[in-house]
Amino acid sequence: MTDTARPRRQMRLGAFLFGVGHHAAAWRHPDVDPQAPFRFDYWLDLARKAEAAKFDAVFLADNVALFGSSPETIAYTPPVYTGEPLTLLAALATHTSHIGLIATVSTTYLAPYHVARKFAALDQLSGGRAGWNLVTSGSDAEAANFGLDRQLSHDNRYQIATEHVEVVKALWDSFADDAVIADKASGRFYDPAKLRLVNHEGEHFRVRGPLQTGRPVQGHPVIVQAGSSQDGQKLAAATAELVFTAQQSRLASRAFVQGLKDKAEALGRARDDVLVLPGVTIYVAPTREEAEAKLARLHDFVDMGGALQSIRTFLEWDLTGADLDAPPPPPPFTEGWQSRQKLFYDLALEEGLTVRQLVSRMSAARGHLVLVGTPAEVVDQLEEWFESGAADGFNILAPIFPQGLDDVIELVLPELRRRGLFRHEYEGRTLRENLGLARPADGFSADGAADSAPGPALTDRRSHA
Amino acid sequence: MTDTARPRRQMRLGAFLFGVGHHAAAWRHPDVDPQAPFRFDYWLDLARKAEAAKFDAVFLADNVALFGSSPETIAYTPPVYTGEPLTLLAALATHTSHIGLIATVSTTYLAPYHVARKFAALDQLSGGRAGWNLVTSGSDAEAANFGLDRQLSHDNRYQIATEHVEVVKALWDSFADDAVIADKASGRFYDPAKLRLVNHEGEHFRVRGPLQTGRPVQGHPVIVQAGSSQDGQKLAAATAELVFTAQQSRLASRAFVQGLKDKAEALGRARDDVLVLPGVTIYVAPTREEAEAKLARLHDFVDMGGALQSIRTFLEWDLTGADLDAPPPPPPFTEGWQSRQKLFYDLALEEGLTVRQLVSRMSAARGHLVLVGTPAEVVDQLEEWFESGAADGFNILAPIFPQGLDDVIELVLPELRRRGLFRHEYEGRTLRENLGLARPADGFSADGAADSAPGPALTDRRSHA
Repeated sequence: MTDTARPRRQMRLGAFLFGVGHHAAAWRHPDVDPQAPFRFDYWLDLARKAEAAKFDAVFLADNVALFGSSPETIAYTPPVYTGEPLTLLAALATHTSHIGLIATVSTTYLAPYHVARKFAALDQLSGGRAGWNLVTSGSDAEAANFGLDRQLSHDNRYQIATEHVEVVKALWDSFADDAVIADKASGRFYDPAKLRLVNHEGEHFRVRGPLQTGRPVQGHPVIVQAGSSQDGQKLAAATAELVFTAQQSRLASRAFVQGLKDKAEALGRARDDVLVLPGVTIYVAPTREEAEAKLARLHDFVDMGGALQSIRTFLEWDLTGADLDAPPPPPPFTEGWQSRQKLFYDLALEEGLTVRQLVSRMSAARGHLVLVGTPAEVVDQLEEWFESGAADGFNILAPIFPQGLDDVIELVLPELRRRGLFRHEYEGRTLRENLGLARPADGFSADGAADSAPGPALTDRRSHA
Repeated sequence: MTDTARPRRQMRLGAFLFGVGHHAAAWRHPDVDPQAPFRFDYWLDLARKAEAAKFDAVFLADNVALFGSSPETIAYTPPVYTGEPLTLLAALATHTSHIGLIATVSTTYLAPYHVARKFAALDQLSGGRAGWNLVTSGSDAEAANFGLDRQLSHDNRYQIATEHVEVVKALWDSFADDAVIADKASGRFYDPAKLRLVNHEGEHFRVRGPLQTGRPVQGHPVIVQAGSSQDGQKLAAATAELVFTAQQSRLASRAFVQGLKDKAEALGRARDDVLVLPGVTIYVAPTREEAEAKLARLHDFVDMGGALQSIRTFLEWDLTGADLDAPPPPPPFTEGWQSRQKLFYDLALEEGLTVRQLVSRMSAARGHLVLVGTPAEVVDQLEEWFESGAADGFNILAPIFPQGLDDVIELVLPELRRRGLFRHEYEGRTLRENLGLARPADGFSADGAADSAPGPALTDRRSHA
C-alpha cells in the first residue's frame, strides 16, 4: 500500500448541546423558541441529527446552580438544561444506537459511589456509549447549594477530584467482565473469584464496594475533562481520555495539546490515549457575507448591560463600571475561573480589544474559537489545526439550535468528508470503539484472582493524614 | 342519582418491579432468564404491560450497596437493579405516556439539591409522572459505600430526612408555575417576582437555591414513603402522599392505615391526602390447585442454607445456627430493620411457625401479604381489605416476571373491574391526577410575591444547635 492510499487520520467531533445555542443571545434570536429545551423532542431531534451525521458524541455541560445573587440578576439568563444531563442522556440512550453520550458531573458535590453507578447504568442502557466529563465546580453559587459559604480552594478541589476518579475506577473494576454466571444449580449469581471489595480508605473518601451494577460495557465509561489550569492539566494527563478545551489561537492550542500529551507520555500513557478537542463555534454559509451576517444578526441581540451582568456572575469579572471603549482592566483571577479569565484578558491584550469588543467575543462562544466563512474557509482552518497537532478534532458549539447544527452538518461535514477527514460510518458500537480508545482490562486473571488490583494500587492516604 | 349508581371508590395499584421477581428464588425458576434485567427491553416490556393494564405507577425500590460481607456471601444474590432506578425511569418515561414512575432515593446519601433536581427533571421528561419514594437507608453495607463505619442511628436518619424533604419541597417551590416569561424584548427569561432564593439554614443542610429546573409539572412530584417505625410513621403522616407498607393481617393493616390517617388529620391534612398501599404478592390461577402449585414450584428452588445467609445479610437476623424445626429465637431489633424483624417475629409467634416455615414465608415476599387462589378468591381478599379500611389499594409484587405480572393482569384485574373496583381508563395525565391527589400551590400570589413562603415557613434549626 502506498503512502497516499493510506486513510487519513480522522477527526473526532463532538456536538455540544447547550440550551438553545452557545451564543449568549441565542434565545433572543427571532428564529429560536426559547422554551424548546423544556421539551424532550427538542433534544431528541438534535441527538438524532448528530447521530445521523456520525458525530462521535453529544456533550452536555453542567452546573449545579443558577448564577446570580438575586432574583433580578438570575432573571436574565435561561437555564442551560431545564432538566438534568444524566436524566436526559438516559432518555436519549434508548432512542439512539451509536452516538456517544457525555454528561458532566462534579467530583465536588456527588459521591464517587453515585458517580460510578450512574455512569455504569448509562453505559449499560446505551450499550457502551457513556462518557463522564469530570469537573470540580468552580463557583460559589454551586457551593451555596451544598452547604458551603464559598467554594473549596482550587487545590483542594483537584485533590478531591484525583482521589474521586481513582475510587470511581476501582468501583468499575470491582467485578470482572465475566463475573455473572447466574448458575441456577449452585445458587451462585456471581463467581465469587470474579468480584472484589474496593475497601478504599483515602484522605477524602472511604468506600467499600463492590459496585452493584457489575462492570460497565466499556470497562470504564470514557473519562472526559476540560480543566485548563495546571492542576487541571495534571489530572487530565493522568486520567482523561478526551479533553475539551477553549483555545483562541492555533499555536496556543498546539502548545496546550502537545504539552498535555507530553505529560501523559511521561506518566506512561501513549500520546493517542488522550484526545484533545478544542471547542469551536461555526458561522458558515455559501458566501462569506452570509456567514458574517449570521454572526452580526446575533450580535444585535446582545444587551451590553445584561452581558456585563452575566460576565460578572458567570465569570466573576466585574466590568460593569468599565469604559466600554477602552481596554479592560485586569480580571481578579478568582479560584473558580482563573483559566478562563486569563484567556479573555490575554485575548484583549493581544488583539487590542476594547471592553465592548471583548464582550462581543465572549458572547459568541464563551472563549472558544469562532470561525466565520464559507465551508472551504472553515474547513481550511479546522484542517490546519488538526494537521498541525493543535487538535485531535473539535467539540462543535452551534450558535443557535437547530439551525447552527444543521449548517455544520449540511455545509462543513461534506467538505471534511471530501478531504477524507471525517467518517462516513461509525467504526464500532461503543463510544470507546469509535474514538479508537482501548478498553481497560478488569485486572482479574482468566481463572479468577480476587486479590489482584487493577492498574495502580489504591493509595492509603490516611496514613499520611 | 341513587346511591347504588354512584361509582365505587377506586383501588390504587402499583406494579412493583424488582429484578426477575419478588420471590427470593425467582431467578432460579426454569422459566426465568436471570440476566434479563441487564437489558432495557425487559423493563420496557414490563412498564408497557403495566401501563396497558392502567396501573397507577411502576415502583422501583433501591439500595446503594450489594449486601454481604465477602465475595462468597455477595455471590448468592443477584442485584435488584443492575443499573440504577432513576436512569431506568428516565428511559421508560419517553416510551410511556400515563403510568406513574416512582423511584427510591435515600435522604441519607444524596443531597437535597440533587434529589430535588433529579425528580424535577424526571417529572418534566414524563409530563408530570414522577414520584419519590423517600427512604433513609438502614444498612451498614450502604453506609460503608459513603464513608461511614456504621449507619447513622435511626433517630438521626429520620431527623435528617425530615429536614431533607422540607428543603426539597422548598426548592421545588423556588419558582412560580408561571415564572418563565422568555421575553426577548426585555431580555428577561424569568419574571424576577416569580422566583425566590430558598436560603435554607438548618441543622443538617444549608441550601441557597433556586432550583435550576423551574417548578415541576406536578408542582411537587408525588412523595412516597415506606417506613413503618414510629419515626417513619411520623414523617409519613406529615409529608407522604402514598405509603407503601408490609402487612400480614387485615386487622393489623387497618390499624396501621387508620392510625396513619389519624396522625395526618391531626396535622391538618385530609385523610385522603395519604393513600396507603400494602404490598401483596399474588399466586393466581383458574383453580386453587394450580395457584398453589405455582408457589410450591418456587419453594422448591429455595436453598435453606442460602436463604438463612440472605436473611442474615439483608435483615441482620442470624438464624444460621437455629434449629430449623423449632420456633425462631428473638431477632436483634437492629437499627436498620427493626420494623421488619418485628413483623416476622410476631408472625412466627402468632402462627406458631418453625424457622423452616418462617423462611418459606420470608422467601415468598419479604414479609408482604401472600395471596394464593382463584381470581375470585384473590379479589375477595383484596376487596375485603379495601372496603374495611385496611388499604387504599395495593402495591403488587409479582413472584416472577413477566409471568406473575401477566397473571395479575389477565386474571385479577378483570375481576376487579367487574366489581367496579379498578379503572378502565386513566383519569388524567399526571400521576397526581390519577391518584386523585391535589397539586400543591406554588405559594406565589398571582401578581408575584417573592417574599411569601409556600406551606409552613422554613425552620431555622441552627439557632437551637
